[in-house]
Amino acid sequence: MLSKPENERFRRQVEFIIEIDKVKHIFRQTPLLNKSRKENDAEHSWHLASMVTVLGEYAPEGTDLSRVLKMVLIHDLVEIDAGDTYLFDEAAAADKDEREQKAAERIFGILPEDTGAGLMSLWHEFEERKTCEARFAALMDRFQPFLHNIETEGISWQEHGIRRSQVLGRIKPALEEFPLFLDFLVKNVDAAVEKGWLKPD
Amino acid sequence: MLSKPENERFRRQVEFIIEIDKVKHIFRQTPLLNKSRKENDAEHSWHLASMVTVLGEYAPEGTDLSRVLKMVLIHDLVEIDAGDTYLFDEAAAADKDEREQKAAERIFGILPEDTGAGLMSLWHEFEERKTCEARFAALMDRFQPFLHNIETEGISWQEHGIRRSQVLGRIKPALEEFPLFLDFLVKNVDAAVEKGWLKPD
Repeated sequence: MLSKPENERFRRQVEFIIEIDKVKHIFRQTPLLNKSRKENDAEHSWHLASMVTVLGEYAPEGTDLSRVLKMVLIHDLVEIDAGDTYLFDEAAAADKDEREQKAAERIFGILPEDTGAGLMSLWHEFEERKTCEARFAALMDRFQPFLHNIETEGISWQEHGIRRSQVLGRIKPALEEFPLFLDFLVKNVDAAVEKGWLKPD
Repeated sequence: MLSKPENERFRRQVEFIIEIDKVKHIFRQTPLLNKSRKENDAEHSWHLASMVTVLGEYAPEGTDLSRVLKMVLIHDLVEIDAGDTYLFDEAAAADKDEREQKAAERIFGILPEDTGAGLMSLWHEFEERKTCEARFAALMDRFQPFLHNIETEGISWQEHGIRRSQVLGRIKPALEEFPLFLDFLVKNVDAAVEKGWLKPD
């Protein structure tokens, strides 16, 4: 910028806003629904947050949806440094936590200390999947790419030779306590195997 | 999808989630910060929502930030049908309201009636700029593209031959009650004119 804010707190906030523009270049394996290209983390995070605004009624009683919104908005910022780890890539998963923790420290560290610590803690909460907010955020994070696969003839599954048991193993746990979503998953996985989009086991 | 949800309410929610994927193809005039291409509405909306999570302390007292979040997440969905209207395009602005209202009816109409009516009302509230939530959302919506222009040598301003008075006329009103943002705007506009990124009047 040509003239930086004199106010130190505001300057750091603006710097953070500029930094996170980079997630618009972090591409995931999930295709857009018109199959024209893969989606990036900013689009994915927006989609999850929008889903929270229309699916909030399925969250466990007492869930603070505004915390879920914040969680899904910031959950992939660490990928600016750590890159996207494909859900079914077991090799890359090995050092994922370490890479992402380092990234979180740098990126949230740009912010004023109190705000940065708040987002760091929210990101850890998301990763740990223990609170009802984190479990509902995880539901969104698993359901959206599944829906994209089902709507695009399983392009990314076919590209990576994914099997039925991998999808169920990695996605089903997050859907277990949400009956409508679980039913949708199971029926569509079976149908996808029949269509040849997913390998049987 | 291969197997549609039997539950009618859930089916309409899922259909809406699929429909809104289209904003990932609605391009704005604002460039990404690395100047590689223009940004789309999903990326823009994600950026605004993320800004709300770190700039909330500047919202007027009593602002419900979770409503601001929802507002910025859905504020551009109408552009799926109505297209993006460039902030400085006065000709396109003439029938913008009518085009967008029609779009809102179709798109929010996909949802279960209660949820759809809620989002429609939230969108109208955003457009009317009267509540503190709408005014804070508008601040985000004006500040983000301004920041992108300042960070990219005013690419889109130069492309469209934008003048100083146009930027101040269209952006300043939304920043008036937020001193740090207003100061940032005025100083950077003056500097941008000096650099030749914005035409003087």
